[in-house]
Amino acid sequence: MPLPPLPPRVRPALADATRGRILFGGDYNPEQWPEETWPDDIRLMREAGVNSVTVGVFSWAKLEPRPGERQFGWLDRLLELLHESGIGVVLATPTASPPPWLGRLHPDTLPVDEDGRTEWWGGRQHFSHSSDTYRHHAAAITEDLAARYGSHPALTMWHINNEYCTYDHSDRAAARFRDWLKQRYGTLDALNTAWGTAFWSQGYGDWAEIHTPRRAHYLRNPSQVLDFKRFTSDMLLECYRAERDIVRRYSPHIPVTTNFMPLWEGVDAWRWADEEDVVSVDLYPDPRDPLGAQHGALVQDLTRSQARGPWMLMEQAAGPVNWRGVNHPKPRGLNRLWSLQAVARGADAVCYFQWRQSRQGAEKFHSGMVGHAGEEGRTYREVRRIGAELARIAPEVTGTHTVNDLAILHDWHSWWAGAHEGRLSGEVDYAQVLTAWHRALWESHLTADFAHPEHDLTRYRMVVVPQLYALTDTAIDSLVAYVRRGGTLVSGFLTGIADQDDRVRPGGMDARLRELFGIGTLHEWWPLEAGESIRCGGFGGTLWSEEIESAGDAEVVAAYEGGELDGLPAVLRNGRAWYLSTLPEPSHLRELLARIAAQAGVRPPLDGLPPQVEAVRRGEALFLLNHARESVTVPVPGTHHDLLTGAKVTDEVTLDRYGAAVLKP
Amino acid sequence: MPLPPLPPRVRPALADATRGRILFGGDYNPEQWPEETWPDDIRLMREAGVNSVTVGVFSWAKLEPRPGERQFGWLDRLLELLHESGIGVVLATPTASPPPWLGRLHPDTLPVDEDGRTEWWGGRQHFSHSSDTYRHHAAAITEDLAARYGSHPALTMWHINNEYCTYDHSDRAAARFRDWLKQRYGTLDALNTAWGTAFWSQGYGDWAEIHTPRRAHYLRNPSQVLDFKRFTSDMLLECYRAERDIVRRYSPHIPVTTNFMPLWEGVDAWRWADEEDVVSVDLYPDPRDPLGAQHGALVQDLTRSQARGPWMLMEQAAGPVNWRGVNHPKPRGLNRLWSLQAVARGADAVCYFQWRQSRQGAEKFHSGMVGHAGEEGRTYREVRRIGAELARIAPEVTGTHTVNDLAILHDWHSWWAGAHEGRLSGEVDYAQVLTAWHRALWESHLTADFAHPEHDLTRYRMVVVPQLYALTDTAIDSLVAYVRRGGTLVSGFLTGIADQDDRVRPGGMDARLRELFGIGTLHEWWPLEAGESIRCGGFGGTLWSEEIESAGDAEVVAAYEGGELDGLPAVLRNGRAWYLSTLPEPSHLRELLARIAAQAGVRPPLDGLPPQVEAVRRGEALFLLNHARESVTVPVPGTHHDLLTGAKVTDEVTLDRYGAAVLKP
Amino acid sequence: MPLPPLPPRVRPALADATRGRILFGGDYNPEQWPEETWPDDIRLMREAGVNSVTVGVFSWAKLEPRPGERQFGWLDRLLELLHESGIGVVLATPTASPPPWLGRLHPDTLPVDEDGRTEWWGGRQHFSHSSDTYRHHAAAITEDLAARYGSHPALTMWHINNEYCTYDHSDRAAARFRDWLKQRYGTLDALNTAWGTAFWSQGYGDWAEIHTPRRAHYLRNPSQVLDFKRFTSDMLLECYRAERDIVRRYSPHIPVTTNFMPLWEGVDAWRWADEEDVVSVDLYPDPRDPLGAQHGALVQDLTRSQARGPWMLMEQAAGPVNWRGVNHPKPRGLNRLWSLQAVARGADAVCYFQWRQSRQGAEKFHSGMVGHAGEEGRTYREVRRIGAELARIAPEVTGTHTVNDLAILHDWHSWWAGAHEGRLSGEVDYAQVLTAWHRALWESHLTADFAHPEHDLTRYRMVVVPQLYALTDTAIDSLVAYVRRGGTLVSGFLTGIADQDDRVRPGGMDARLRELFGIGTLHEWWPLEAGESIRCGGFGGTLWSEEIESAGDAEVVAAYEGGELDGLPAVLRNGRAWYLSTLPEPSHLRELLARIAAQAGVRPPLDGLPPQVEAVRRGEALFLLNHARESVTVPVPGTHHDLLTGAKVTDEVTLDRYGAAVLKP
Repeated sequence: MPLPPLPPRVRPALADATRGRILFGGDYNPEQWPEETWPDDIRLMREAGVNSVTVGVFSWAKLEPRPGERQFGWLDRLLELLHESGIGVVLATPTASPPPWLGRLHPDTLPVDEDGRTEWWGGRQHFSHSSDTYRHHAAAITEDLAARYGSHPALTMWHINNEYCTYDHSDRAAARFRDWLKQRYGTLDALNTAWGTAFWSQGYGDWAEIHTPRRAHYLRNPSQVLDFKRFTSDMLLECYRAERDIVRRYSPHIPVTTNFMPLWEGVDAWRWADEEDVVSVDLYPDPRDPLGAQHGALVQDLTRSQARGPWMLMEQAAGPVNWRGVNHPKPRGLNRLWSLQAVARGADAVCYFQWRQSRQGAEKFHSGMVGHAGEEGRTYREVRRIGAELARIAPEVTGTHTVNDLAILHDWHSWWAGAHEGRLSGEVDYAQVLTAWHRALWESHLTADFAHPEHDLTRYRMVVVPQLYALTDTAIDSLVAYVRRGGTLVSGFLTGIADQDDRVRPGGMDARLRELFGIGTLHEWWPLEAGESIRCGGFGGTLWSEEIESAGDAEVVAAYEGGELDGLPAVLRNGRAWYLSTLPEPSHLRELLARIAAQAGVRPPLDGLPPQVEAVRRGEALFLLNHARESVTVPVPGTHHDLLTGAKVTDEVTLDRYGAAVLKP
Repeated sequence: MPLPPLPPRVRPALADATRGRILFGGDYNPEQWPEETWPDDIRLMREAGVNSVTVGVFSWAKLEPRPGERQFGWLDRLLELLHESGIGVVLATPTASPPPWLGRLHPDTLPVDEDGRTEWWGGRQHFSHSSDTYRHHAAAITEDLAARYGSHPALTMWHINNEYCTYDHSDRAAARFRDWLKQRYGTLDALNTAWGTAFWSQGYGDWAEIHTPRRAHYLRNPSQVLDFKRFTSDMLLECYRAERDIVRRYSPHIPVTTNFMPLWEGVDAWRWADEEDVVSVDLYPDPRDPLGAQHGALVQDLTRSQARGPWMLMEQAAGPVNWRGVNHPKPRGLNRLWSLQAVARGADAVCYFQWRQSRQGAEKFHSGMVGHAGEEGRTYREVRRIGAELARIAPEVTGTHTVNDLAILHDWHSWWAGAHEGRLSGEVDYAQVLTAWHRALWESHLTADFAHPEHDLTRYRMVVVPQLYALTDTAIDSLVAYVRRGGTLVSGFLTGIADQDDRVRPGGMDARLRELFGIGTLHEWWPLEAGESIRCGGFGGTLWSEEIESAGDAEVVAAYEGGELDGLPAVLRNGRAWYLSTLPEPSHLRELLARIAAQAGVRPPLDGLPPQVEAVRRGEALFLLNHARESVTVPVPGTHHDLLTGAKVTDEVTLDRYGAAVLKP
Repeated sequence: MPLPPLPPRVRPALADATRGRILFGGDYNPEQWPEETWPDDIRLMREAGVNSVTVGVFSWAKLEPRPGERQFGWLDRLLELLHESGIGVVLATPTASPPPWLGRLHPDTLPVDEDGRTEWWGGRQHFSHSSDTYRHHAAAITEDLAARYGSHPALTMWHINNEYCTYDHSDRAAARFRDWLKQRYGTLDALNTAWGTAFWSQGYGDWAEIHTPRRAHYLRNPSQVLDFKRFTSDMLLECYRAERDIVRRYSPHIPVTTNFMPLWEGVDAWRWADEEDVVSVDLYPDPRDPLGAQHGALVQDLTRSQARGPWMLMEQAAGPVNWRGVNHPKPRGLNRLWSLQAVARGADAVCYFQWRQSRQGAEKFHSGMVGHAGEEGRTYREVRRIGAELARIAPEVTGTHTVNDLAILHDWHSWWAGAHEGRLSGEVDYAQVLTAWHRALWESHLTADFAHPEHDLTRYRMVVVPQLYALTDTAIDSLVAYVRRGGTLVSGFLTGIADQDDRVRPGGMDARLRELFGIGTLHEWWPLEAGESIRCGGFGGTLWSEEIESAGDAEVVAAYEGGELDGLPAVLRNGRAWYLSTLPEPSHLRELLARIAAQAGVRPPLDGLPPQVEAVRRGEALFLLNHARESVTVPVPGTHHDLLTGAKVTDEVTLDRYGAAVLKP
């Protein structure tokens, strides 16, 4: 079933793989079992509605057991079998985990940590992004894979590497870092200026003096550390691009992806997403976490925003993972509920790591779609139900979009800059602050996009900035213009403190932003201790407080009470620009954002939603998801059809524990 | 007093050293003091009834101050003095702590950790078990010691090295590891299969690619880690054997031992015990631990089971140790009580580290039989009493055995396999689970042997399996046969999950065991958080729970209540086979095991024992030990003599705080 | 304004720099800003009364951007500008932070930690004190600086390096360690004896076998670790002396200092102080710590005692620092209060790190006298007030002394010896014990000097020893003689346990001290768990308890109640010698020491002081400092003038929150 020819230079997309279906399946690593068992896998896959599997992620040693050898026979047979069975193949380049011989023959392919310790083979991801040797061998196996399978009829997507997340402090990496810095700064003077090397006698007189930020006696230069994070993201992106360009040469019509980790600090996923045909992500909320569903929603919103449309859930777990301190299984129904949540928030592919649970190796206690209990196990039985239901709703939802009036700004560079070891409070964790703000919106039944601070924000009625410690001039000007043009902006503390080099703005916070929010002098930051609460007008503030003066016509909506900051602004409003100098406790942040949203004309998809029910509109479908273990009745005015059951629903719908409905008018 | 000639090929035993006495004494390191003080040591030893000292454990630098030199004069004089004084000598090979010159001249003798960091001299145990150079020098000094003192009349036992516990990740160790693996697996294919290297692209194409499990980016291969632990135990055993064989050549009539650490993860002591003439152990319960006595009982039971008869307490502390966070002394009477406990549980030798407390060095705050306070100190005064009492009871107890109807199964390989970093719950600690089960029996006044899962169990009425994550087919078949032949078996969770390669059994738990216990499908494991308790029928379960179905005629003795597992079996009984899918809180586990034991005909040595009194029969003697700080009266039907006091005891005996009686009919 | 010629061989002193003023200013690192901004700095300095700045601390890379180059132009201009503005210059040698080229061209200048890990440049203090190359380059830049500026009229003081605090385990350091040991011990025999190497087979047969105490398998030799700490302090002192002697050659009339860190374990500041013309210290109490002021008082008392007169507060923070977990600013008034406290306790110089807060680099969130908020910020406005007030009171206080009747004994060698990893309790922290005792005196309004245990103590009515684990014979004899001559001595536990080699004294505590305090046999130490309290006569004891007998006529002032130590002495008095075998809870330690002090004739400077008011006499001035956030009225009999306000004060004075008065009759 060859795809129709595409016009030149138009990139293929997820729709080319889904073709009206929701992709359902997972990583399939059958090299762990005797080939005789493969047909049984196929049988179970078909029973479960699996239509897509990811193959080859960790197959390098199998494909190239000795340098330069190639063993494709098993993969030929596997792809043929899958093709015959109508199961599409997402074919991975196996470059995340080189075979032992590579490290042994070429120790320069092994990464080194900041203490100078080598990361050996025996686990996975033991490759140096900066090693020419690694890149050479990775390109060679990729080339051969692409040449052999680029036109295979089973092939629906390319998956490059896996969860890019490594770093390197070797001398090789230092050399590449210097090249990267030359590109960025041109001259040593520019670098010395950007890094502020006049402090602590760090002025560089020769490029060769620069290395990655290795172990030091005391705090390291923050701009150097920041650039090292940028460099690391860029080196990994170079590795990705190199393989992507190879597979594209052989199969220009096949979309390419690589799987992000959820809210992962290591790579600038905004930038990466632009280099992918399909944006995909791995998602592993803790089933015991009462806010697991919100974490899922956050990652899904972020991924959808990066994809600017439908995206792929590359990995989730049918049951427990095996890398937490205590790893909990999913209670009955939760796998289905969270799978539907992903679709509600834009996923057109719902996949798992992995198809069949391993019996050996480091992840044998990580669940699979088929667990150790086999086809009689509850886990597989639930998987079968999910497969059937996704197939049922797919025609109505695939390819459709979500339109939101609300955006949350997020940027990796700001995250990186704000995380320096010499910051004012180790209690302030960017990801936690971001999560707290998203939670407030999620609990208000408001669905938001994520956006980069330099994105065009004009289509949003309201924009929130949980925390953007470092902002470029362009971003700041854009925020000011956004409010001037009628947008509502709500910002948390530690926003606009530094520029792109991590240079503190005069006054301790950018003057344009201070004017925007009606902030006069910023005298001192008053970070709070862990667990400490500061009284504000009717609520408690956490994490942070500030000794600031209001300026101009700004209104002090809530003031600190008692203590050293008595009367100073905790919440400040200057027209449509709001500033929070503390993190209100969850219930108050929720009420505050819901109130501001209502004023800005941003509304939930349905009125009168019970707290435990998540409601999301995607295209014409309304997803209702009950995150509680008790059933609940939701008022839904008018008549709808539930796509999951085919039932007609009038004025209200009852959802079982972990129940869901997908309603269409 | 030369020993009578032994028949050839019969190994000497502990009885050859005790000759009807209980050995009493400790490590004696007089090289720390001027030789003029030795006579004073001898005087105090004689006053305290010391009849055995261990000499030379850390004397290598003294014996061989420069490579190849020998300084035996001081040791000649010391052994002569001891011999004249009637004090027997356990002579140690000094190979646990090489002199500084060895590391300096031969850096290859120094071990390297998994991060590549060298362990330098300046402490102790800085030797690489894999270094030929180390082994060569260790053999040479052992040979010379054996040649010189092998026929010395003071010599009663050889003590090889000390507390074998090191590891090594050097290139040397990697080479030996490869040799060991070749022995075990024969072919690379067999190794790749056993280790499951198909996962994560770890297939080995050349033996030279294999190293020890060094620092990696992420989880390491569990079978490789398991084999490394086996290898480490075996390498240390090779070192032990090499020295043992040397001393045997010179003194075939002298028994040989090496001292185990208590419940130490590092060496497979079942296997080691078979290579010793005398099994000895070091034992250091925390005097502040309310369960210190139970920990002692556990280690004593384990050591007695390894020895299959009387054993040697090589090291205990007369007062505090110095390696805990806070090191507590022994309250008045506790040293005596715990010494008698060791005898009750089979010890024929009660010794200390060390005779006289050091004034210098890293252990100068570790107590001695003679402390810093000298002969006026309470510690020495209590030691003197213990020496006198042991001499008094020795004729009635030495050489006698304990016969038990109950066995606890324990295996190091299963411990190792179950401890992988990628397991489901980091809260599950094998040693703690084992201790919890032993405690339940101990508090029920039931004395148990330990046994290896492949041992012959037919002589036991009841066998308990606290947790045996990995079991061989042989062991499983043996357990099934044991129940079939009428034995009562009680097993905790996480038993029979994996085979000897750490390969998960189909179904997540061995099918034979599931049938034995009446378990149907095992859907999911539900590990519990630290401190979490799950309601079962009348008690709380901790650490773990399971989503299992019962099968066949199995009776659900206790079911989970509420939550996701409502109604599923917490305690399952299938005839004489019992399965616990959680760890009941201590009081309930105690009641449950006592009830099952009673049904199986296993009874405490005495009825009506107060909870704080431990009662153990050894031979004809009944030891009664009061672990409380209050006196207690124990009903003892009939008339006995207390061997400690010579008093006649009728129908009851009163024990002071920390008091004891050794009764004989 | 050249200084008057000094008589030969008389060293210059702080008075030569103050000339009747209190030095006020801070570290000035203008190389971080364009030269055009310097005049603005000068304007703000003059407004704030700044009369002294420290220049060049981190300027090495600026002065010598490439090996051997010199760029003095900017420094010439800076010193000229400062001189013109009447601001004196404390000129620093820049040797604490070598330029990147030094590490790159000479890796032997980089320090290595005990795990063998290099400390790279990119932070600061990345120099090996043992590197000849480092010392050579440091001397060269020092020489050129001294030659160029030694006669500069702006120069008022030399500041050598900065916060000496490094260590080194490289092979270079090992070689120097051996040389140092040869100096100390002469022969290997003497070293082996001092280190007790007979234990654990550590006997050295060749000097070349000795290295620094690197990573080992288990506990390291405590005497080796102790000597390594001594060596480290001495190596750093060698570095200091080398630079000091260079600058002295060029400017013999200019006093020399280096800044200590507060109560820092790393250098023996008693010994260092004797090598300085001016003793200076950095001081950073946590503004949120309720005992921050007491910590300040302790460090100030210690520094004054080292200086034997006026001293220099080289660094404090006008607001937050940036190296705590959470860094708090100073509330309004606290900077002024703590600055006056330093003057009260002997400072004639009150300076800050740093003048202007950095916008870049690792310390951009460390406050400055001019913060990010600039001259409108509260921080700078308060600095201006402090400058004015210090100028007002200076004529009456500079150069004056404090006379105390009370001394606290403190010694670094004892601290080091007592901190070994093999000690009895990890809960006993010397600095915390010292702080607890100082707090008891501080809360009793008693001001104490610190003294070394071998100092002449005759001028004190009372001496307290919080804890001196290791004492020389000389020190012990001195303490005994002190009491015999009529002095009152109060000692805490763990005093006199070991000698200077960390050899435990016979009996576990020196016999002379036991006799002095009326202690008989010391049976056992009973350390307490964290948070544990032991009942004594009417109070709770913490951290420690002891099984000791009283002897002779000693009076058991308080006895343990219940438990194993029932009736044994918690507080023991033998005439004027007191011994505490536990650490009483704070209120009781305060009452006890106040009572003993009163008996010894030691009194607070004023009767009836409210608890929150600190009162210190310096010369004729009486400083009253209110550490509370509420105002308070203090009875002050008679009539005084408040030097801060010029107001007349009769019989009482009211202090605002954080308020102060400096009264003169």
